[in-house]
Amino acid sequence: MKAIIQRVTKASVTVGEEQVSSIGRGICVLLGISVDDTQRDADYIVRKILNLRLFEDENGRAWAKSVMERDFEVLCVSQFTLQCILKGNKPDFHSAMPAELAQPFYNSILESMRSAYKPELIKDGKFGARMQVNIQNDGPVTVELTSPAGPSDPKQLLKLEKQQQRKEKTRSKGPSESGREKGSLRSRQDPSASSGAEGDVSSDREP
Amino acid sequence: MKAIIQRVTKASVTVGEEQVSSIGRGICVLLGISVDDTQRDADYIVRKILNLRLFEDENGRAWAKSVMERDFEVLCVSQFTLQCILKGNKPDFHSAMPAELAQPFYNSILESMRSAYKPELIKDGKFGARMQVNIQNDGPVTVELTSPAGPSDPKQLLKLEKQQQRKEKTRSKGPSESGREKGSLRSRQDPSASSGAEGDVSSDREP
Repeated sequence: MKAIIQRVTKASVTVGEEQVSSIGRGICVLLGISVDDTQRDADYIVRKILNLRLFEDENGRAWAKSVMERDFEVLCVSQFTLQCILKGNKPDFHSAMPAELAQPFYNSILESMRSAYKPELIKDGKFGARMQVNIQNDGPVTVELTSPAGPSDPKQLLKLEKQQQRKEKTRSKGPSESGREKGSLRSRQDPSASSGAEGDVSSDREP
Repeated sequence: MKAIIQRVTKASVTVGEEQVSSIGRGICVLLGISVDDTQRDADYIVRKILNLRLFEDENGRAWAKSVMERDFEVLCVSQFTLQCILKGNKPDFHSAMPAELAQPFYNSILESMRSAYKPELIKDGKFGARMQVNIQNDGPVTVELTSPAGPSDPKQLLKLEKQQQRKEKTRSKGPSESGREKGSLRSRQDPSASSGAEGDVSSDREP
């Protein structure tokens, strides 16, 4: 599952002439569900959407508060084109979950967000309709989320890459694989780990 | 290098009260440069941005034409937050190229786009400024591009994974894991393969 999160001053969805929803400050989420996604992916994405620290605190300190902590809004729109594989220059969407399965799954994700936050602050598009999504990206600030469970997830693949490097380094001593995964993601922290990077200067960079 | 491409009906950039640029139909590109990116990444991203088939042709056939083939516009805005690693819920931007290096690199990318297309149809934000980027996402249609040269790039890692699988297959006397990961990415086609998916029905899916 992929989500593109844009921090917004405001955002809205129009179908034809009709505005179907709108939010003020908050985040606009474009959500792409893959054929392989499960409830585990949904849980991860929902948790991250609601808890990502994309906003300043009351003292202007950047990257300090989540959408929930600021009482801001969420506009979530289904976006199967994020599950795109390029064949040359042509997008192919075989890896997107088919609409008849994606729609109930997507609705359950919206419900999870509403349960975890305030239901009236979670807005939606119109599944399957041709929409105009008006996004006033504030910063701009855009973050891409990929759920950890997918087989083609970059983090999984990074782990594999490091495993391989380690194997090649140690292969002179025989085919032992002990300690194979030790510290394999040292520089890349577990995204589900608890936060604790308060002293990290680079996080204070402003858009 | 990462780029989030949004197909737009219109888009514009405002800094304070001043509108610094605007486009009509075309694509809005949010571009995140990593510390590891080189000219090779830039070349790949520029080529894909300009040639991705995100537009209908004159007969309404979807995914048929690129921004260049339709004579549409490009608004490209630098977006270091795409090079984000989550530490828990806090974004960390150590892997983004520092601004003093990213700015000339970003300008050279804009110049490449102008050289490859019509310079007057390539618009820009204001590097490093706090901007409001107004995006009217048409569809919506959003595609994420990742350049192939980065060390944590999915495509490179896919290649590595396949190499690993091959090695493990041939290492028949060792503690083989070949069954475990065999074909784990079978459904993910090589995105750098040449195009030729004209008959691909799933590409005709509409947003």
